[in-house]
Amino acid sequence: MFDLTLIGIGTGNPDHVTFQGANAIRDADLILIPRKGENKADLAGLREEIIAAVTDTPPQIAYFDIPKRRAEDGYLRGVDEWHDAIALRWQEAIAAHPNARHVALLIWGDPSLYDSSLRIASRLDPQPQTRVIPGITALQALTAAHAIPINDLGAPYVVTTGRRIRDEGWPANASKVAVMLDGECSFQSLDMEGYDIWWGAYVGMKQQILIKGRLTEVSEEILANRARCRAAHGWIMDIYLLKKREI
Amino acid sequence: MFDLTLIGIGTGNPDHVTFQGANAIRDADLILIPRKGENKADLAGLREEIIAAVTDTPPQIAYFDIPKRRAEDGYLRGVDEWHDAIALRWQEAIAAHPNARHVALLIWGDPSLYDSSLRIASRLDPQPQTRVIPGITALQALTAAHAIPINDLGAPYVVTTGRRIRDEGWPANASKVAVMLDGECSFQSLDMEGYDIWWGAYVGMKQQILIKGRLTEVSEEILANRARCRAAHGWIMDIYLLKKREI
Repeated sequence: MFDLTLIGIGTGNPDHVTFQGANAIRDADLILIPRKGENKADLAGLREEIIAAVTDTPPQIAYFDIPKRRAEDGYLRGVDEWHDAIALRWQEAIAAHPNARHVALLIWGDPSLYDSSLRIASRLDPQPQTRVIPGITALQALTAAHAIPINDLGAPYVVTTGRRIRDEGWPANASKVAVMLDGECSFQSLDMEGYDIWWGAYVGMKQQILIKGRLTEVSEEILANRARCRAAHGWIMDIYLLKKREI
Repeated sequence: MFDLTLIGIGTGNPDHVTFQGANAIRDADLILIPRKGENKADLAGLREEIIAAVTDTPPQIAYFDIPKRRAEDGYLRGVDEWHDAIALRWQEAIAAHPNARHVALLIWGDPSLYDSSLRIASRLDPQPQTRVIPGITALQALTAAHAIPINDLGAPYVVTTGRRIRDEGWPANASKVAVMLDGECSFQSLDMEGYDIWWGAYVGMKQQILIKGRLTEVSEEILANRARCRAAHGWIMDIYLLKKREI
């Protein structure tokens, strides 16, 4: 029987790794690495680089393929089946290493924030003891890069997805909203007069780009940069914080 | 002229420090340390311990006293004057070390989340170039300790303060709400039948306590533990995540 550790590794900057994360890598005797993610930002080589940086006696590595997500007949149902399929791949990879006692995965960002690994882990049978090591999220890398607080003084904020902004509009009563998992610049669905944006792509990485300003004034620049960089790098991962303007 | 680096150090576990944070400590030639915070959780000795762990040639340390916050005649105005007063202490401490080029502060959690250091830094004159290194927040330490995602699948969440929950109630349309800066177990002001809670005190530290469950069933246990631990340790810092129950 094995235990499982989900280690948050930050957003592509190997120096985002915490001492706790490095210790957990050293303690593992098997690490599962996705061969290619749905998301190209799961940069090939980043996980190997992190492992090599923290230990001279690396644990065994088991690579697994991430299955394709089915075209959506209902978003949640599609995701659910996809998680089932990934859990099977984990199970197979672990079964091929029957002596492994401490299995780990290196998770982009933090395993607790818009990440599926805890839900996938809960499908394993038998159920391993599961531990989470927090890591720096893209949201933190964004606000650090802009050198801004995420919240106004004593004020709340909302974290949501591009899909929700498109489908439901601006969250009720919110003054600041961080948007994640947005492949479509969903801020365009808002009345752009009313908002300021702090946008970033590849946050924390060498390729990092930052744009901020009134949405009406910078949205074209964001769209153009996003298209250009995506073409140049073959993938892009971006995130942003919006603030409602006082009227 | 100097530059300023605000380094997030996590929530009391020295292993929350990132490699980037450790590098920034090594690069600093002056570190400002509060002699005693408003909050006792700014554990005496933690910052010195972290510095000693990452470098054999520690930078100069300048200690400063945090002034008392005036009794509130308007919360925001009180905080504003308090930040002015802290900025003066920083200014004095830095002026006493005129050769320092790279000044740093070690910030509990992440400088971008419910933290004042960016607002205090903006009051310095002349204005230094300011850089932020993100760190693990109490919110991340909480969800990691409970091994739960903060968000439901593809769903938004709200982060707010105890004060807001007491004054304004449950945020409109929210299903999951994380509450920070709450010295008064403000969940008691809600209709407790309707919520589940994941609560933690001293998250990430050796003294960590976790309680979860239906609010009606665990609120007494939380209140009792909170009072007992606060008496035993002389201080407490707690945080929680609430989820509205489906009716």
